[in-house]
Amino acid sequence: MSAFKRIGLVGRPGHSGVVDSLRSLGEVLKSLGLKVLVDQISGEMLQGESFELMERDRLAGQCDLVIVVGGDGSMLGVAPMLAEHDVPVLGVNRGRLGFLTDILPDEIEARLRDILAGHFTEEHRFLIECELRRGGKVVQSGVALNDVVLHPGTSARMIEFELFINEQFVHSQQSDGLIVATPTGSTAYALSAGGPIMHPSLNALVLVPMYPHSLGSRPLVVDADSLIRVVVGKQRSIIPQVGCDGSTGFAAHPGDELIVRKRPGALRLVHPLDYNFYQTCRSKLGWGNRLGRADD
Amino acid sequence: MSAFKRIGLVGRPGHSGVVDSLRSLGEVLKSLGLKVLVDQISGEMLQGESFELMERDRLAGQCDLVIVVGGDGSMLGVAPMLAEHDVPVLGVNRGRLGFLTDILPDEIEARLRDILAGHFTEEHRFLIECELRRGGKVVQSGVALNDVVLHPGTSARMIEFELFINEQFVHSQQSDGLIVATPTGSTAYALSAGGPIMHPSLNALVLVPMYPHSLGSRPLVVDADSLIRVVVGKQRSIIPQVGCDGSTGFAAHPGDELIVRKRPGALRLVHPLDYNFYQTCRSKLGWGNRLGRADD
Amino acid sequence: MSAFKRIGLVGRPGHSGVVDSLRSLGEVLKSLGLKVLVDQISGEMLQGESFELMERDRLAGQCDLVIVVGGDGSMLGVAPMLAEHDVPVLGVNRGRLGFLTDILPDEIEARLRDILAGHFTEEHRFLIECELRRGGKVVQSGVALNDVVLHPGTSARMIEFELFINEQFVHSQQSDGLIVATPTGSTAYALSAGGPIMHPSLNALVLVPMYPHSLGSRPLVVDADSLIRVVVGKQRSIIPQVGCDGSTGFAAHPGDELIVRKRPGALRLVHPLDYNFYQTCRSKLGWGNRLGRADD
Amino acid sequence: MSAFKRIGLVGRPGHSGVVDSLRSLGEVLKSLGLKVLVDQISGEMLQGESFELMERDRLAGQCDLVIVVGGDGSMLGVAPMLAEHDVPVLGVNRGRLGFLTDILPDEIEARLRDILAGHFTEEHRFLIECELRRGGKVVQSGVALNDVVLHPGTSARMIEFELFINEQFVHSQQSDGLIVATPTGSTAYALSAGGPIMHPSLNALVLVPMYPHSLGSRPLVVDADSLIRVVVGKQRSIIPQVGCDGSTGFAAHPGDELIVRKRPGALRLVHPLDYNFYQTCRSKLGWGNRLGRADD
Repeated sequence: MSAFKRIGLVGRPGHSGVVDSLRSLGEVLKSLGLKVLVDQISGEMLQGESFELMERDRLAGQCDLVIVVGGDGSMLGVAPMLAEHDVPVLGVNRGRLGFLTDILPDEIEARLRDILAGHFTEEHRFLIECELRRGGKVVQSGVALNDVVLHPGTSARMIEFELFINEQFVHSQQSDGLIVATPTGSTAYALSAGGPIMHPSLNALVLVPMYPHSLGSRPLVVDADSLIRVVVGKQRSIIPQVGCDGSTGFAAHPGDELIVRKRPGALRLVHPLDYNFYQTCRSKLGWGNRLGRADD
Repeated sequence: MSAFKRIGLVGRPGHSGVVDSLRSLGEVLKSLGLKVLVDQISGEMLQGESFELMERDRLAGQCDLVIVVGGDGSMLGVAPMLAEHDVPVLGVNRGRLGFLTDILPDEIEARLRDILAGHFTEEHRFLIECELRRGGKVVQSGVALNDVVLHPGTSARMIEFELFINEQFVHSQQSDGLIVATPTGSTAYALSAGGPIMHPSLNALVLVPMYPHSLGSRPLVVDADSLIRVVVGKQRSIIPQVGCDGSTGFAAHPGDELIVRKRPGALRLVHPLDYNFYQTCRSKLGWGNRLGRADD
Repeated sequence: MSAFKRIGLVGRPGHSGVVDSLRSLGEVLKSLGLKVLVDQISGEMLQGESFELMERDRLAGQCDLVIVVGGDGSMLGVAPMLAEHDVPVLGVNRGRLGFLTDILPDEIEARLRDILAGHFTEEHRFLIECELRRGGKVVQSGVALNDVVLHPGTSARMIEFELFINEQFVHSQQSDGLIVATPTGSTAYALSAGGPIMHPSLNALVLVPMYPHSLGSRPLVVDADSLIRVVVGKQRSIIPQVGCDGSTGFAAHPGDELIVRKRPGALRLVHPLDYNFYQTCRSKLGWGNRLGRADD
Repeated sequence: MSAFKRIGLVGRPGHSGVVDSLRSLGEVLKSLGLKVLVDQISGEMLQGESFELMERDRLAGQCDLVIVVGGDGSMLGVAPMLAEHDVPVLGVNRGRLGFLTDILPDEIEARLRDILAGHFTEEHRFLIECELRRGGKVVQSGVALNDVVLHPGTSARMIEFELFINEQFVHSQQSDGLIVATPTGSTAYALSAGGPIMHPSLNALVLVPMYPHSLGSRPLVVDADSLIRVVVGKQRSIIPQVGCDGSTGFAAHPGDELIVRKRPGALRLVHPLDYNFYQTCRSKLGWGNRLGRADD
């Protein structure tokens, strides 16, 4: 018997394939006698189906497992809530294989039965949180699974900031900004920006400078339990933005401090037993497969 | 009183400044009543001085502290021996500030007195070891503080290999080779090759592909306790080389397996109390200092 | 006798050193019996001096030579006007050596006398212009010496566009944007973004993708007489910005076309006879000097 | 009627598909009444076929058109000879689309009939030549379509050299070497090494530093008519290698001068009328196709 009795479904709106997958999932789950809760927004896509609807914010508290149907972006949206409620999540990708949503649509039923039968692995992905401090007070905060990004916002000019790690001064920098990414985020925006890929099990953060003026500035990998503190330069009349996981975020004033650190708890990602991080890399990044005969 | 009674001195040959620094060190140490042992090769530079000479291989076993005078390259040469004997080491740089040799010549005396008085910190830098296996037997091996590099050697053609981490297949690759670097090595060759900087305290390895044919191949950071296994491709008549810390190394045949893993023990680097890894980065990589007034 | 009779002076506001240099220049020029015209804004800095003031826009039309005192940014600001009037320009840098302002403050007098005596070289730097077309009509336009940049503006999301060169379809791209840079601009923002350095005499443009989603996207160098056309993607509700030489610029709507092409005419940069582009690179980028003795 | 009367065939040895394509080509050409000359090595693969055989070196002098069947590597091998004899060449690729061999096997007949009927474009790709000078005398020389590479050879240590362009000193450099690439070569090894893509029509060379010690060293694009001179450092006992188009090449001694410059003449590449350089980039580098509907 499955340890998962109450299953929540969350789908990416505006995609017909997502509706199909949600229907398939719902049918399989019902046929197994499990309780199915659908988030309000996804439910509106499922006209005519008789699933119990629930606001997304309340869903995590009512489920043993949540299944997200969409892309990695959909997973990012619900990750903080699921991590907070310590609820495992399974990702079904409607497009190509995702880094976080690694079940393909045509294998949903088989994979789901396996997982409900207890044949799965669980991988913990830590999140980070950020605080913006002005005059010693926290004025904004956010949570991210992938990355916290300090960027110039509307300004076309470089920003300037000082970086401290565990209260050690690291450097000042003129650049387009700074990406602080988790291992999960290392295959997302930070990768485009020249950062390394970090294995998901690594307890580390990577700080990637964005188009730094100095060519000697490079990605820096530090322990994930480090306290990252960025002090926005006072000299320029620039209002940088802080974004979490690609959100528009909030504005930082000259002199503000941005604190980034690991958040207690983690996202519990459920995978089939044959899951392999590197297989996803090979598929998405074009890494070479096993060598066979002589190539051309 | 100092915990260090017997001090070994090792100098980089062929550099007049090194001789001066060795003499200064010897005088200070003698004046403090400490026993000074000089390695045979360095001793030959110190004509007319009455220091006890000893073969470099035996030095580590007879000392409480070894002082290396030279550049980071000199430290690399003695690191495996010092790590094996668990003897702390202090690095004096005759050129610019080094990452491993962070005492400057004109501060030798003051720094040394502080350190001998017990005012120092000790930082542990782990080493890695590699084995080349042919037909199941180990045919070559090596030790490195910075990196193990698989490269084409005399050949101008790309090499081809498969990579496994903890027995999970990662990818096959056509490239000029692979650098497996420690955090210590991340500021050396791996940095030129596009790898990230890793804080010395991080328990991680970075694998940097060298000019990979596929543009999707990128530096990969994994836990330092991972077992790295590289299988040299059989299809091409190429004899790649394996080098440790820049040594010429040894040849790998098609089908050979190269194992790289963390070595037990560590190099015990002694630093002044105000040592800061990031200060060395600022000095050597041109990172920006504290922000002051408006810049130009 | 000098071919330059009427000399215009333009200074970067808000910098005391600039005032000193403007005064020095004015005195030398007057002592040589040359007419000195100072732009209105710079003149306000020179309280108590009796120079003829003139609005910056009219200055170029009244001078044989303009001298810009400031940094490369100051030169960018007046370059379009000077190019349009075909007036040569000399750059005096108040900070470190600049790529465009290569006279240092303490060599002003000697350098200036040489140049006025006819001992100089003239280098032509072409500019580019851009047009934003909406429904077939030009709605915005701009001129740049360094670069035209398409970037997401306030949005934190990637933009999507199609690129055509000489009406050949090149690719579609999801990225943070695109930099189209001249050789002059290749040592500015485009360099931070991973573009190559192009010798100033090269008749080429480089197109640098900004943090492209696809790792196979790379800087592309094409003939400077190519017609660059970028079509902003229609599918996303993103309003990218277009900036010239770091200006805030103007907004592009989905479906808009951005045309970038070489502009007729050029900026005529006056240099001392011993000017060497690579010397500036060595100074500003830390390139190595002539080899001497064995290094450390 | 075709302007091409005598057609030479050259195939990459050791590939069964190449034999099939050579046979197909031979049959089509014979049926059109054209004279077919097959190079000796390729002829040995075609047992039982009655083609006139000829040594590869003599082939170019006897043909109006040469067809190369293989990969880009096969084209590199015959390019110098074809350029010297000013004979146009058509490339048939037995694997995936190549940058130089852009006819696919299953379109051979249709493409060939079109081209023989005069429906083709011709693209000129310039070559470069290098000379190694020792004590003022030329001791070695070579020709390349893609690149001339100076690399450390057997040594695992960095090499050191000075670079001059048109007799202007550019910089000294400690690195793994230097790639001097043509636009044709810019999509080959130089691309893996971080160089830009240059459009084939551009009259430029790119100089790509290989893993330079200084992070400020970057790819440099200069006019193809520049004279490149590299002086190998005298201080280190390193014997670097010089390779042309990936060949093993020859050894350079400390103090030797390597001259690289454009070679008179060009390779005349024949393409179908719908040939587009960017299409090959999209296919080989994964660049995005035309935008359609909203993607996932």
